[in-house]
Amino acid sequence: MEIVSEWASHGGRQLVARHASEAAGGEMTFAVFLPPQAKEGPCPVLWYLSGLTCTHANVMEKGEYRRAAAEAGVIVVCPDTSPRGDAADDPAYDLGQGAGFYLDATEAPWAGRFNMKTYVTEELPALVAAEFPVDMARQGIFGHSMGGHGALTLALSLPGRFRSVSAFAPIVAPSQVPWGEKALGAYLGPDRAAWRRHDAVALIEDGARLDEILVDQGDADNFLERELRPELLERACTEAGIALTLRRHPGYDHSYYFISTFMADHVRFHAERLKS
Amino acid sequence: MEIVSEWASHGGRQLVARHASEAAGGEMTFAVFLPPQAKEGPCPVLWYLSGLTCTHANVMEKGEYRRAAAEAGVIVVCPDTSPRGDAADDPAYDLGQGAGFYLDATEAPWAGRFNMKTYVTEELPALVAAEFPVDMARQGIFGHSMGGHGALTLALSLPGRFRSVSAFAPIVAPSQVPWGEKALGAYLGPDRAAWRRHDAVALIEDGARLDEILVDQGDADNFLERELRPELLERACTEAGIALTLRRHPGYDHSYYFISTFMADHVRFHAERLKS
Repeated sequence: MEIVSEWASHGGRQLVARHASEAAGGEMTFAVFLPPQAKEGPCPVLWYLSGLTCTHANVMEKGEYRRAAAEAGVIVVCPDTSPRGDAADDPAYDLGQGAGFYLDATEAPWAGRFNMKTYVTEELPALVAAEFPVDMARQGIFGHSMGGHGALTLALSLPGRFRSVSAFAPIVAPSQVPWGEKALGAYLGPDRAAWRRHDAVALIEDGARLDEILVDQGDADNFLERELRPELLERACTEAGIALTLRRHPGYDHSYYFISTFMADHVRFHAERLKS
Repeated sequence: MEIVSEWASHGGRQLVARHASEAAGGEMTFAVFLPPQAKEGPCPVLWYLSGLTCTHANVMEKGEYRRAAAEAGVIVVCPDTSPRGDAADDPAYDLGQGAGFYLDATEAPWAGRFNMKTYVTEELPALVAAEFPVDMARQGIFGHSMGGHGALTLALSLPGRFRSVSAFAPIVAPSQVPWGEKALGAYLGPDRAAWRRHDAVALIEDGARLDEILVDQGDADNFLERELRPELLERACTEAGIALTLRRHPGYDHSYYFISTFMADHVRFHAERLKS
């Protein structure tokens, strides 16, 4: 692993690191913020998964998470959203590079390198645990849009791994919306039974459980009705007895201006649940 | 004036506006954040001047000023740093477009359009006062690097205009450093007497006064010794009896990771002095 950038920020350090990834079949880049408390000893770690078209850099530059993370003493790791470089790609913004959907693809040309589930839940955590002062017994996960889908599905799939889960404007039921139907079909093939393990609403219907979930959603989000459909998560959580806090915000869209407005709330939500 | 972008953020609205500028001889773009309090009535206005290579967008995306501005009820206006479009330019990053230096150029090819002092202190304030609920009796000004130079020199040149002045890593004595010698020579010609009206240290030496100034400076800033030289401002303020608070921060560089760390302090510094 190589540190390619480092900045002092909010009493801690914002780092960008690069490493050779087996899961993604090439070089991968991620961001890590170490709060000032990381100088003293291990800190809880909060995984932020980004949305379509993003790299590690978008939330690092525009997400405004550092002040709250420094106050709470939480390490924040922001992975990329897909393999890069000579990995397979597609001209559309919602498939291929920048659109890994946090699953392991089984279909050509994606299989072999589009293993973002393995990358985010196995390879990168092992690297982060080896390189940074993280307390891996205290992990939280959150994300935006496709990354909200990632946070929800990975937490539902790995019971006990994450103490806290939240999302900004997540894709909650990819099997039922155009972005998800396109991506899951391309990466996993036409058998929709295989899609259910990568669909938060389907996972809950099939018995997966979380204690609680925090979701923020803008009501002026262009993708709300067609792609996000938080009412499907609301119904599934009600039926399953999962404590979902779904906050709808008048006038807010799908941008980082929305994310950054509620970022401190999310970091504090996680920090409270990650206290030792 | 045309609003080209608008986002809900921190209970207020982040806007980007475009207008035909007489001073800059073409279309200019600027950012305005309206805090929630602006729905109720006029708010104080804080001008943020950006550094070399920046447009209105850099600080809008990376400066992290909205939370503090929303809490304090302050409108923040972020102008561009030079004329654009078919205005004269130079291949170097530190001259021409993106490098207006907040003065009115007298030399070819810059004279006629490189009038950023007139733009920022006359034309844009008139437009902002006409279009937004600003209390023009309560103005503050701050900026970064070249924009810190702009904030200091404009405040020193316009006694009584700004109730509060601060800067992040400002160029304090352009007549004595390479960036400034190049730009002032190109825009104002070889007569260094004319430069003194655009040099904070020289203005103070020549009798201009402010009550107080807040400056934050990273000690790992690559430009510290060659271009910024805050000790020159410190000496001038001491001799002139200006209350300068110069905070030096170990490990911090010249980036937005530095600016965003201390942004809330600056917004609050201004807000306290802009209370009615």
